[in-house]
Amino acid sequence: MYNIDLNCDMGESYGAYKLGSDEEILKFITSANIACGFHAGDPSTMYKTVQLALKNKVAIGAHPGFPDLVGFGRRNMDISPQEAYDMVVYQIGALNGFVKAEGAKMQHVKPHGALYNMAAKNHLLAEAIAKAVYKVDSELTLFGLAGSELIKAGDAIGLRTANEVFADRTYQKDGSLTPRRESNAVITDDNEAITQVIRMIKDGKVLSQQGIDIQIKADTVCIHGDGAHALTFARKIRELMESSGVNLQNFINK
Amino acid sequence: MYNIDLNCDMGESYGAYKLGSDEEILKFITSANIACGFHAGDPSTMYKTVQLALKNKVAIGAHPGFPDLVGFGRRNMDISPQEAYDMVVYQIGALNGFVKAEGAKMQHVKPHGALYNMAAKNHLLAEAIAKAVYKVDSELTLFGLAGSELIKAGDAIGLRTANEVFADRTYQKDGSLTPRRESNAVITDDNEAITQVIRMIKDGKVLSQQGIDIQIKADTVCIHGDGAHALTFARKIRELMESSGVNLQNFINK
Amino acid sequence: MYNIDLNCDMGESYGAYKLGSDEEILKFITSANIACGFHAGDPSTMYKTVQLALKNKVAIGAHPGFPDLVGFGRRNMDISPQEAYDMVVYQIGALNGFVKAEGAKMQHVKPHGALYNMAAKNHLLAEAIAKAVYKVDSELTLFGLAGSELIKAGDAIGLRTANEVFADRTYQKDGSLTPRRESNAVITDDNEAITQVIRMIKDGKVLSQQGIDIQIKADTVCIHGDGAHALTFARKIRELMESSGVNLQNFINK
Amino acid sequence: MYNIDLNCDMGESYGAYKLGSDEEILKFITSANIACGFHAGDPSTMYKTVQLALKNKVAIGAHPGFPDLVGFGRRNMDISPQEAYDMVVYQIGALNGFVKAEGAKMQHVKPHGALYNMAAKNHLLAEAIAKAVYKVDSELTLFGLAGSELIKAGDAIGLRTANEVFADRTYQKDGSLTPRRESNAVITDDNEAITQVIRMIKDGKVLSQQGIDIQIKADTVCIHGDGAHALTFARKIRELMESSGVNLQNFINK
Repeated sequence: MYNIDLNCDMGESYGAYKLGSDEEILKFITSANIACGFHAGDPSTMYKTVQLALKNKVAIGAHPGFPDLVGFGRRNMDISPQEAYDMVVYQIGALNGFVKAEGAKMQHVKPHGALYNMAAKNHLLAEAIAKAVYKVDSELTLFGLAGSELIKAGDAIGLRTANEVFADRTYQKDGSLTPRRESNAVITDDNEAITQVIRMIKDGKVLSQQGIDIQIKADTVCIHGDGAHALTFARKIRELMESSGVNLQNFINK
Repeated sequence: MYNIDLNCDMGESYGAYKLGSDEEILKFITSANIACGFHAGDPSTMYKTVQLALKNKVAIGAHPGFPDLVGFGRRNMDISPQEAYDMVVYQIGALNGFVKAEGAKMQHVKPHGALYNMAAKNHLLAEAIAKAVYKVDSELTLFGLAGSELIKAGDAIGLRTANEVFADRTYQKDGSLTPRRESNAVITDDNEAITQVIRMIKDGKVLSQQGIDIQIKADTVCIHGDGAHALTFARKIRELMESSGVNLQNFINK
Repeated sequence: MYNIDLNCDMGESYGAYKLGSDEEILKFITSANIACGFHAGDPSTMYKTVQLALKNKVAIGAHPGFPDLVGFGRRNMDISPQEAYDMVVYQIGALNGFVKAEGAKMQHVKPHGALYNMAAKNHLLAEAIAKAVYKVDSELTLFGLAGSELIKAGDAIGLRTANEVFADRTYQKDGSLTPRRESNAVITDDNEAITQVIRMIKDGKVLSQQGIDIQIKADTVCIHGDGAHALTFARKIRELMESSGVNLQNFINK
Repeated sequence: MYNIDLNCDMGESYGAYKLGSDEEILKFITSANIACGFHAGDPSTMYKTVQLALKNKVAIGAHPGFPDLVGFGRRNMDISPQEAYDMVVYQIGALNGFVKAEGAKMQHVKPHGALYNMAAKNHLLAEAIAKAVYKVDSELTLFGLAGSELIKAGDAIGLRTANEVFADRTYQKDGSLTPRRESNAVITDDNEAITQVIRMIKDGKVLSQQGIDIQIKADTVCIHGDGAHALTFARKIRELMESSGVNLQNFINK
């Protein structure tokens, strides 16, 4: 029997601005990464999203990002490791306020956007983020790109880590994602994407763009929550996984 | 023997902008109200201020305010009770991230500026704030203007509350502070200010501007942390209290 | 022959957050109120919106609001007249940067949301806003609620003013809009709404909710740019006006 | 006779946060770079600073920066050239609102902090900024690091440019500033610093850290406005320049 967690970014609305189909997507996933007010989200959205996740019995995680709302946290910022530590502690704490207020417990932390990508490669940034998570609550699970510096830093400090894979992205032979600016970065065929994920889960392998199979560890799969296609894909990946003997399960009761 | 807590607003710097003399003032007070990034403060300032407070064995409290950095949280905003609840949960949580990361425990919550003043009079706002504090951690102490709606709401929900008095402000016969725009709002003579406070603590009375003694409960005294005079006053009020048989003590071990 | 201007709020997107159907609605209106980055809008959205307005030969106006993105500028803030002056000068200037860069000219200024509503009643705020507009460019037209303090302040300082009416709102006998919280605030039937507007334009009268006809001056009509119904309504009001002998024209060549 | 402009960053206060000694330093300089609300400054500070500059007959320039108040615009951000264009147009426009309101004229634009440093090296960013300045007002003077990509881009588009030198910084043989992290980056002796500047002005040469004289063009000298030493240095550089036959003059009447 194989187990996998299915995660999605949530709570990315801001005031009058609505983003994503959280209510619908929550029916299909097992872990929700909730924005914490820096790259997206605001206190009222966080309150509602925590309520929704609990109602759907989906595990809650903090999704801290850069303080760059207008850039949606997608632009690299040249911050120091200490600044990374501080902004991650702040954002985990802020979301935890809402989680504690409901008598619940946070499961995980997954950095967002440019912070996630930078922490995948930058050792010092990865260490600072892992330390922030560990010091706020050493029982949290740290999500990071499979095999990345962030996963290594989480393992080193003693956190449970979850190697994240992407259903709809192609991989390079060094295990990195093919950059989005390249034409073959995204897998547009649903069945092909899901077949790739199931192979990563069962065999621990993925065929890189260089034609070579590489090893990859898949603990959690990221799916997207916005776009017209998001719900259809969420339903399909869930169905195909279950019919392939892959059990959807988060990290709460592990 | 009389006990009193001495509190001061802290951590109000923001990035390159420095405000207050936190390091020095921490030697004299027993409780620190730390800004949480909305009206003042930023993650790095919060990290440093929590460290400083712990080093000085001063109890830590969250000091949530309006999301109005340019107005320093001093301008009334027409928010709903639900928005007040959400922004207070968020800010307590954010500061608590830093407190938990140090293995410490938060003592109290004191709303800032316009939020404090509005919550002193507006029953629905007061209730929403008290509920936010209670739901995040029912062991927190809620600071509010002595005898205000906020204190009543805290008492009603089952929180420990601390009636706050101001050393250097005059009072009206209904127990409210004389508005700052009036000429007699502030007591400029240190000894007069401290004598008034000690009487509030020992006798539970203060002479109002209408010439009538009114009843007032003093659990904590607010002193100011900025301005050239702040340190001198902090030292003097501490000395005069101790020589008057008033013991300085926060709410942690009560 | 009757003339009327048809205006709509525009450029209210923010970074990744999209709001409104600006491209489509621009085909029907004669004046665009472009958000300036405080309550909505960001530099890139402003750039694109100015381009779109020019392409559609729609007159450009600044739509300054409160510095309250999360509240979309809809929450009253207790600012001083000087603060109002400063934030309006700033926002007009910012939009004017984009207008000048295209070699174009700004036509008007219309305050947004809570700032608009407060300036309709508060004489000092109205005066500060009118002064800001006048000092930046005395040829600008000031839009305000028909008969409001803002219109009076604009007239007094020597600005051209445009009395604004709302197609889909009902009126009280004192000329104010029926507050939204009341059940009869909004006219949901398109034909009824448009008939009311055409009467305001032609006869200068509107039937108040108290059953009494009141005098009203209509120089410009505000229509909404978001919601599924917005385009249909924009098309219909334009058609019905033209077939009723009302000419759609902004203030540029007047 | 030699001419030189003396510029200083101004208007960097923000709400309750005060920075710099603008009133005093304005007596010594000929051009003021006024923060525009992104990295520092707010509408009320901009209003006051424009008034002060005009009162002191100091030429006014916009000082646009990254939207990173907490980082004071000193952290590199990975923005696109279009985003650079948009944020520079916005900020020039915003300041110009206050300048126009006083019936005055803006002289120049100087990017701030990380934006200044990135534009010194990145050709596409430099081009975008130069285009923003040119399109808003082709008569503006563009300030940039002497010999940098920004100066080249300004020259190429047809702007008047001003090569900026730093009195208290040392230079590398390629004309770049010695990075601040190196021990010999800053000249701490006032006379040595001023002697270096005067040589740059008169001879167009500076001795690099590699012991070789390099050519440098000095149109404007940047001095600092904060720190206890700022006023003393401002007074001294002005006096020594005048006694060395260097005339202090901005670009307004050139």
